Amino acid sequence: MTLKSTAARPMFDRRLFALRAQLADAGLDALLITNVVNVVYLSGLRASAAALVVTPDDATLVTDFRYQEAARLRLGAGDAPSGVHLEIVDQTYDQTIVDVIRSLGMRAIGVESAHLTIKRFHWLQQALDGACSLEPTDRQVERLRVVKDEAEIMTMREAARRLSAVALEAWSGVVCGRTEREVAADIDAALVRAGFDRPAFETIVASGPNSALPHARPTPRRLQRGEPVLLDFGGVYDGYCVDLTRTRVLGPAPAALRRLHEAVAASQAAAIEAIRPGTTASAVDTAAREALAARGFGRDAFGHGTGHGLGLEVHEEPRIAPRGSGERTDAPLEAGMIFTVEPGAYVPGLGGVRIEDDVLVTPGGVEILTSAPRALHVIDAD
Amino acid sequence: MTLKSTAARPMFDRRLFALRAQLADAGLDALLITNVVNVVYLSGLRASAAALVVTPDDATLVTDFRYQEAARLRLGAGDAPSGVHLEIVDQTYDQTIVDVIRSLGMRAIGVESAHLTIKRFHWLQQALDGACSLEPTDRQVERLRVVKDEAEIMTMREAARRLSAVALEAWSGVVCGRTEREVAADIDAALVRAGFDRPAFETIVASGPNSALPHARPTPRRLQRGEPVLLDFGGVYDGYCVDLTRTRVLGPAPAALRRLHEAVAASQAAAIEAIRPGTTASAVDTAAREALAARGFGRDAFGHGTGHGLGLEVHEEPRIAPRGSGERTDAPLEAGMIFTVEPGAYVPGLGGVRIEDDVLVTPGGVEILTSAPRALHVIDAD
Repeated sequence: MTLKSTAARPMFDRRLFALRAQLADAGLDALLITNVVNVVYLSGLRASAAALVVTPDDATLVTDFRYQEAARLRLGAGDAPSGVHLEIVDQTYDQTIVDVIRSLGMRAIGVESAHLTIKRFHWLQQALDGACSLEPTDRQVERLRVVKDEAEIMTMREAARRLSAVALEAWSGVVCGRTEREVAADIDAALVRAGFDRPAFETIVASGPNSALPHARPTPRRLQRGEPVLLDFGGVYDGYCVDLTRTRVLGPAPAALRRLHEAVAASQAAAIEAIRPGTTASAVDTAAREALAARGFGRDAFGHGTGHGLGLEVHEEPRIAPRGSGERTDAPLEAGMIFTVEPGAYVPGLGGVRIEDDVLVTPGGVEILTSAPRALHVIDAD
Repeated sequence: MTLKSTAARPMFDRRLFALRAQLADAGLDALLITNVVNVVYLSGLRASAAALVVTPDDATLVTDFRYQEAARLRLGAGDAPSGVHLEIVDQTYDQTIVDVIRSLGMRAIGVESAHLTIKRFHWLQQALDGACSLEPTDRQVERLRVVKDEAEIMTMREAARRLSAVALEAWSGVVCGRTEREVAADIDAALVRAGFDRPAFETIVASGPNSALPHARPTPRRLQRGEPVLLDFGGVYDGYCVDLTRTRVLGPAPAALRRLHEAVAASQAAAIEAIRPGTTASAVDTAAREALAARGFGRDAFGHGTGHGLGLEVHEEPRIAPRGSGERTDAPLEAGMIFTVEPGAYVPGLGGVRIEDDVLVTPGGVEILTSAPRALHVIDAD
């Protein structure tokens, strides 16, 4: 296959180069990648179904009829790594994967243990019938994805700029008498107008008591004066996800809500202040939690993590969460990581407040990518 | 826990009753359900993260802080099965699941082999440390979900009626000079106005050469006279997915496109004609394929399956596909199954045509749930 070179190819080649070095360290002859997001990261092909087999010298992209034309165009345009062969599924994905693996004649093939079910693993083992051994691996591609490269940072910085503009626009539609669903539909339309491929998740518009449900879905409830309104929305821009939350009040804010908002804002500021290369995700989480607790909002009020990584997925590494609450919260933060900082506090009977921004860890500390005003701007409800 | 009864409870109780009978047959003491869609089906809780442990006498719903309030409201309102305990995640899901399983004191716990990664399986096994054995199972919940109950059929019939109305509305926005993305954004907005929670998948608007890509994404390309335009969109209505595709031409249709459209329409009619309880999914697929082949469009033109099941997921059982192309295409169709019938033919240089409707298998044959006109309506492009 002859391919002409483009600007994207060196980026993909760097990613495969780094992955191959890891495979060599792990004593693996090849890696079967079954997480489609990891396939996107390494090959550039955005398909809902695909697999990739990476060897020291080349790679085979397995996809089906639906993506055949798109894959050929991409490989033909050089918008993919060097040395990629295309294999179109004939009967089933797993049968095609077995055929590809058998043709390699290799002994130890890594599989992604976090992205392969026990059902598929057993099927592949039986079908390979001892031709090679499948070795569970972990985070081979994720450890690359967690530190963004320059092209990704530029894309996500632009995405965050556009999302901040959508936030400003969104508030003009937050008026008494409209329903949560109507406001959410406006935000979704504004995301598309702003150049996003689609919302990154189901837009949250939560008013009054609903704001106390951290993951409320928009309802036909009408917005009312004196109540909190929480907007949490994100967009996918050129494949990359950004995410933003603001909470405001329609009409005069009750004093208790003002105190709640001040506490969450202080918590977010403390967390952002703590971010720099070498510190841990759990230390950032602790900073957020201590600032809230100092203002009277303890564990009952703030039950979720402080943040999550962003990239090709809207929830990815790193997790900004307490020690012991999941994986790798004690691993050091590195320059190039991008994640949300979104403490919240939820008080039944009063309501909830969450403030979320997207940040990039820089060599010197942190860059805040989103820029919509953070203050509890009291909207005139008349 | 005292719970008052509502209309939804008997439905959930019937589902759990059927599942428990299967577990007894399989010699299992309990089943750990890690597929969140299966958790929704059995418990009613719509959460992005949850697990359910079903025993012969009760069930434990495991979810986290974010869904605590929603889960309590649901259980309190009786909008859930009888005898469900709620367990909120303390540190991690899997640690909480291990604690729940240990507290049961049972020996053989089934796990969902298609919905548990080898990484989680190994972690759970190690953490349980021989306290019980985890037994891989397959389709314990899916075999129930594939045949819809009366409430589901009523919901999906109404959803299909609304989706057909959106289809009619959508075509008014398909005019020369507009971009694929603009038309897709209009469809997404129309879905929300029609009462859908959200699009069921990323809306496809594919014009001209893009119509030959079966899963094209909307681009900034402007619609042009004399070209095919393919619209493929779906909505989620009260949690259930419906899906519709129509292909039309802007201005006079070239004769080759008319022939292509006639062939696909004949293929779809032949497939629908073949549907009745007792026949196989692969027989329906064959009917579609033979009708297309008889009109000169063979395997190269029609590379995807003829249809897919609909329900809580937009792609679920049954798969209407050739023998050997995946699982269970030789299992008999049953009354109460709902799936798409969507043959297509794609000819590089000419374009693609796909026609998709949603059907319900009835005791006497088939009911077509979607109703938008199927003919190649030539839109006046002036």
